[in-house]
Order: sequence, then C-alpha cells, then structure tokens
Amino acid sequence: MRYVYKFGGTSVASPERISAVADRVVRGLSEGHRITVVLSAMAGETNRLEQLAVDVAKRPDARERDVLLASGEQVSIALLAMALIERGRPARSYLAPQVAIRTDTAHTRARIEHIDVECLHADLEAGVTPVIAGFQGIDADGNLTTLGRGGSDTTAVAVAAALDADECRIYTDVDGVYTADPRIVDGAARLGVVTFEEMLELASLGSKVLHPRAVEFAGKYAVPLRVLSSFDDGPGTLITTEEQDMEQPIVSGIAYSRDEAKLTLLGVPDVPGVASRILGPIGRANIEIDMIVQNVGADGSADLTFTVKRGDYDRVCEMLDEMREEVGARGFEGDNRIVKISVVGVGMRSHAGVATRMFDALAAENINIRMISTSEIKISVVVDERYLELAVRAVHSAFELSEAAVEEQ
Amino acid sequence: MRYVYKFGGTSVASPERISAVADRVVRGLSEGHRITVVLSAMAGETNRLEQLAVDVAKRPDARERDVLLASGEQVSIALLAMALIERGRPARSYLAPQVAIRTDTAHTRARIEHIDVECLHADLEAGVTPVIAGFQGIDADGNLTTLGRGGSDTTAVAVAAALDADECRIYTDVDGVYTADPRIVDGAARLGVVTFEEMLELASLGSKVLHPRAVEFAGKYAVPLRVLSSFDDGPGTLITTEEQDMEQPIVSGIAYSRDEAKLTLLGVPDVPGVASRILGPIGRANIEIDMIVQNVGADGSADLTFTVKRGDYDRVCEMLDEMREEVGARGFEGDNRIVKISVVGVGMRSHAGVATRMFDALAAENINIRMISTSEIKISVVVDERYLELAVRAVHSAFELSEAAVEEQ
Repeated sequence: MRYVYKFGGTSVASPERISAVADRVVRGLSEGHRITVVLSAMAGETNRLEQLAVDVAKRPDARERDVLLASGEQVSIALLAMALIERGRPARSYLAPQVAIRTDTAHTRARIEHIDVECLHADLEAGVTPVIAGFQGIDADGNLTTLGRGGSDTTAVAVAAALDADECRIYTDVDGVYTADPRIVDGAARLGVVTFEEMLELASLGSKVLHPRAVEFAGKYAVPLRVLSSFDDGPGTLITTEEQDMEQPIVSGIAYSRDEAKLTLLGVPDVPGVASRILGPIGRANIEIDMIVQNVGADGSADLTFTVKRGDYDRVCEMLDEMREEVGARGFEGDNRIVKISVVGVGMRSHAGVATRMFDALAAENINIRMISTSEIKISVVVDERYLELAVRAVHSAFELSEAAVEEQ
Repeated sequence: MRYVYKFGGTSVASPERISAVADRVVRGLSEGHRITVVLSAMAGETNRLEQLAVDVAKRPDARERDVLLASGEQVSIALLAMALIERGRPARSYLAPQVAIRTDTAHTRARIEHIDVECLHADLEAGVTPVIAGFQGIDADGNLTTLGRGGSDTTAVAVAAALDADECRIYTDVDGVYTADPRIVDGAARLGVVTFEEMLELASLGSKVLHPRAVEFAGKYAVPLRVLSSFDDGPGTLITTEEQDMEQPIVSGIAYSRDEAKLTLLGVPDVPGVASRILGPIGRANIEIDMIVQNVGADGSADLTFTVKRGDYDRVCEMLDEMREEVGARGFEGDNRIVKISVVGVGMRSHAGVATRMFDALAAENINIRMISTSEIKISVVVDERYLELAVRAVHSAFELSEAAVEEQ
C-alpha cells in the first residue's frame, strides 16, 4: 500500500515523541508499505515564533511572517529524517521549494496549486522515505508562503492526491471522529466511517479534528482519509466517498460552535434589494456571514437576522449603526452569547422527521431555538450559550448516538 | 557608500537586540548608504538545535543536520526584516536558495562557489534592504548546506565581494582587534588597521574575532573588512590590503592558542622519506599537523617533533604507537599541556631582530621555548601551558604594544 502519514504538532512535540513517530513509520515500512511523511512544527514552536514576531513589530509583515513560521517545520522534518536514518531506514527531508509545493501568493493563507512529486516517486522506488514540511509553500516568484490554520493537513492530502496514495493517515491526539465532543457527552461514540460531506460539515461546525480545507481537498480528489491516534493503536475513523452499499445511520454526529454572534436589523422595508444593500458591505469587508433569516411582519416591514464570527461582532455593530438610517431600519439588536448546534448525516437526505426529532429534544429541555438553518445533510440551530452542553447532550441522546445506545439497537 | 553589515549571534540574541540592530541599519540608511545585511542565528539557537539532533540520533545525518541548523538564520532574518519594515524601511529576507548561495556538496563545511546578486542589486536600486541568511548555502542538487564555524562571516564577505561593496562591516561583541587578548594583557591596544595577512595569522592563531576563511576570502577579493562593536559606537579595526604609505609597526599583535599538543618520535633513522612515512597517514586521517621540527642527533638518527590540535592528541598517540616499529623509531613522547604564542606583523619582513627580541623577553622570565616556527610575518613559539599569561604579557611589553607605551613613543 502507498500511504501518506501526517503527524501534527503534539505528535512531534519532543525528541521522545519524534522517536516514537520514527518507530511507527519503521513499523509501517516493515509491513511492506511505501510511506511518505508530512509533519507540522513541534507543538509550541509556532506560538514561540509568533511571539518573537510581535516583539519586534506591531504589525509583522506577512511575507516575513511566513519566512519565520516556515522555520518550524524545517526543524521537525530534519529531526524525523535523522531518527529514521539512525534506525537504518534511508530518509530525506523536503522543504516546500525542494518538492515544489507551488501556491498562490496569498501570504499566511496560501492555496496549493501544484506539487512536483517526481522526486518523491524516485525516493519511494529507491526505498527512501520522504519527510515533507507541511504548512509551507512557495509562490511563482520563489517566496515562501504558509497555508494558514490546518495547513499541514492540507499539505498531506495534496501530497497523497499527487502521489495517488491509497490512504492519507492523519495522526493526531484524538483517536478518531466522534458522534459528539466527548468532553461534553459521556459515551460519545467513535465513528468507524464518515463521508467527506459529513466530515466537511462536522469540521466546519467546530469539530477541530481536521481542517475543512483538507477535507474539501480530499473529497475533491477522492483521497481516502483516516484520522487516528499517534499515541495508541486503533483503526480511527475513515473518511471516504459515500458508497451505495454503505449502511448509513440517519445522523452521524452532533457538532457545535461557540464562535458565533447574531445581529438583527429591525423593521427593514420589505422591498427588493434591501438584503444585499445591508449584507453587501459586510461581505466586502471580508466578514463571513453564516446563517441568514428574514421574516416579514404584518406591517410589511421585515426583521433581517444573520450570524457572524464572534470576533467580527463589534465591527458589524458599528457598520449596522452607520447604515441603519440609510436602509430605513427601525433599529438593530445583537447578541454575542449564542452558539450553533448541528446534526449532520448523509442519511437524513432520505429520512423525514430529523428536524422534528431535534426540535422536540430541545423543547423537552425548555431550550428556546433562536434561529434555524438547514442543508441537505445538516440541520443547525442557534441557542443561548448557557444551553450549549445541555442541548448537545439532549440531541445526541435523541438520535441514540451513544455507544451504549448503538449496542442496544 | 555600499556596505554589507554582518551581525553575529549575540547581536541578534533577543527581540530587543534585533530592534537595536534595526535602529543601527536605519541610521546607516539615513546617512544615505546602501546596506545589505547578513545575519547569524540568534545566540543559543544553534546549540538548542544541535541538542535536539543528538536527542533523536547518535550520529545525526549530515544532510539533515544542515537542514536543521539552517532554520536558525531563517528566524533571525525574518525578524530583522519585520523590524525594518515596522520602521518604514522596505526590507526583504533572503534564504540561501533565494539568493542562490551556491556551494559544493560538503555538508556541515561547504564552500561558497557563486552568489547570484542580481536580485540584491534590484532591491538596493529600489531602496529595499536585503537581509540575507548567513551560514547556509545550497548545492547543485538543491540540498541545503552549511558553511561550518564562522560561516556567516564568510557569507558576508562573499556577498560583499559579489556586490563589489565598499566595506564589509562585521558587528560583533568586541570593538575591534587588539594587540593581545585584553583578558590577559592589561592595556592591550585596539588596532586601527591591520592587513589581511596579519589578520589571517591572528585569526588562525586563536584570536576568535574573525574566522580565517572569511579573512582569506576578503583578502582574495580585496574586500575591506571592518570589525566593530554592535553595542557601542567606535571605528573598530579596519582590515585591508597593505599599502605602500601605510605606516606599519613592526609587530601588530600577540596571538596565542591553547588548542595545541606536541608529539615527538624519538630516534628515527635519518633516511629520505621517513617524515612522509610518519606524517602521511596522520594527514590522510584528516588530522591537521601544524609545526614540524626535525633535529638530527650525533648518532645519525633524528627526533621528529610536530604539533596537532589537542582533540587529536589521543588518536595520534595510538597511531604513533602502531607505526613506531615499522619506521624504526626508538620510541615516542608527547605533551598536551603546551600552548603556542606568536608575534604577528607585516613590518617584521623588513626588520631583523624581532625573533631575538621575543626570545630575550621569554628568557628574562625564565620561560623555556620548546619549539619555534617562523613565517614571513609571524614567529611562533611553543611553551608550557602554565607560562601562557606570563609569556604573552612579556612579549607584548617587549614590543611596546600597550596603549600607554604607544602614546609614550
């Protein structure tokens, strides 16, 4: 089998951990697999470097910040290559320019455009294990770039796609994807398989296991992804394409996000184009709008409610205050102590009643639903922050997702 | 003026120090100079990385060690570029591959073959300050290399030569080159000017201010070098070519080296080729032989004495023990508690009596000279280690090199 193994920061946090990673890679090689490794920086290193940056400059230049941060992966790949060579396994570290991980020029959040895997094929052919720096790339002018949060996952998937690997294994500090956050729900169950679409919703909705971009990329190129623990053995969770004969539960998991704030513009005239006159400027200010709800009152005026990330709340309040009169609104109100809770599952496409079951569960706990939004495989509700844990547990239980419940079925 | 400024590890040891370096560069720019900066890694960083390497591998692979160590300069150049940009001065960091510092493939001690300075010229033309990673290079296959000890000095000189700079300024934690080690000799005087030849002897003989390779390179390309303090202002010491009208003192300085050991093969048959039969295998084992003295006794057999670095002493003892019988020697003795003391000065070419003055000064202190070696601009003697300070002070005084003595003249 041809594998890409990716190890995150906590998996390479110390020389001991790096040695353990080397042992794991050697085990895979001994089983006859061909393995390409992608690494993050040692845990804590990126924070250390970011601190140095703000110590020398209030607003660190983006190009130079990328040069700085990219040094973190350079350290971890060299150390792992050394550890493999020490174990008698030929290995070779690759920085982004050396394997030509070409990206666009968007410093701090670049996107991969192309990877030149010829050298990797030659290495694998010759029994050499390539160890590639995640997170970093190089633009057309030879400048270093970085891919932003979750960048190393994306590198791993991109390398796996370019190599046509059989599986991309993301080794992390959790042993898979769960039906809900185990810190909130006792007995949340590890999922054996989820689809790319489900994982994308789960990832976007705040489940921190994988970055959405990596999942999107994997789905696009149909690279089977597996999330598994770098500390224990275990099958982890396989993320793959939906297959006809795959027995799908109606709901795979419950996700939540605390990073939410809600704003309502009151008494907006119900005329065409008013929503875009309000939301247009916000979008152009690079503020991401998530849920949007508009309800028309008896007097022919409407209330427009939408959610943004919490960090953008104050700025959006200012913008609404400025545009209020211009759009003829009566006023606005906001709330930044809300959370979003979502049920996700490809099975709900063909099953009615999922929404009802969710709403009933929340009603039974006297939890007021503030907003609702749905997609083909997801139902999200906004509730007050203080109900977060209660709501997640209630919904998780309503869909009988706990290990115990599954076993009883 | 076109300058290359090089700052060593202690000069960029912290965000505060990097800010001070940025201020100094801004000052130079404000005076209308065009400045290219070369940096070492932050002090302590190389040791930290080397420790990580030995923590994961007993014998770290040389290629990967270079990848690891090269990350140190990547951090410092990014930080300085940020600090300059923060001060409103456009700047751009360059890693070795980006400015094509091409070296041979000798990992951990590579030699610079070529630098592509076109991008630097374009930057300087456009008012951008290039900030270049010292110590690192790239070989013909795109592998990272490092230049070994003093590598950043060599990078600075090579960049200065390639840019045809007016002066290469080496900012360090001392304010110049002294007539003797100020820790040993009270009133040792800072030299205003020394020649490349003198500096090369001083550097090779243990004065740690500049690495001999950097001096050699500067001499070869006639790049004026200036050593000066990064903490204080002051003219430092200019290292340049010897000029006819330069008023040269007979002796410029007194150097010493503790890193010495002496071995004597006794009663070697005085026949042609015997010295090479003894010293050949030692040289081929990559052990550097410094001084060699052979004296023929009355019985037609000779004693062959030579010096090596102290770290090689035990190995050479073993080698001599093995070859003793084969070369027909009576036996061998060794001493690793010796030091070398040298007087250096281009002026001694045209002045007889320098050796006598040195030997008289040592004799007056009852210091026994164990070996003598001379070159055109240098006289070295080996003495017992315990006499080091006494000998240096006696010779320094004999040549009237102290500030007070110079002022009295």
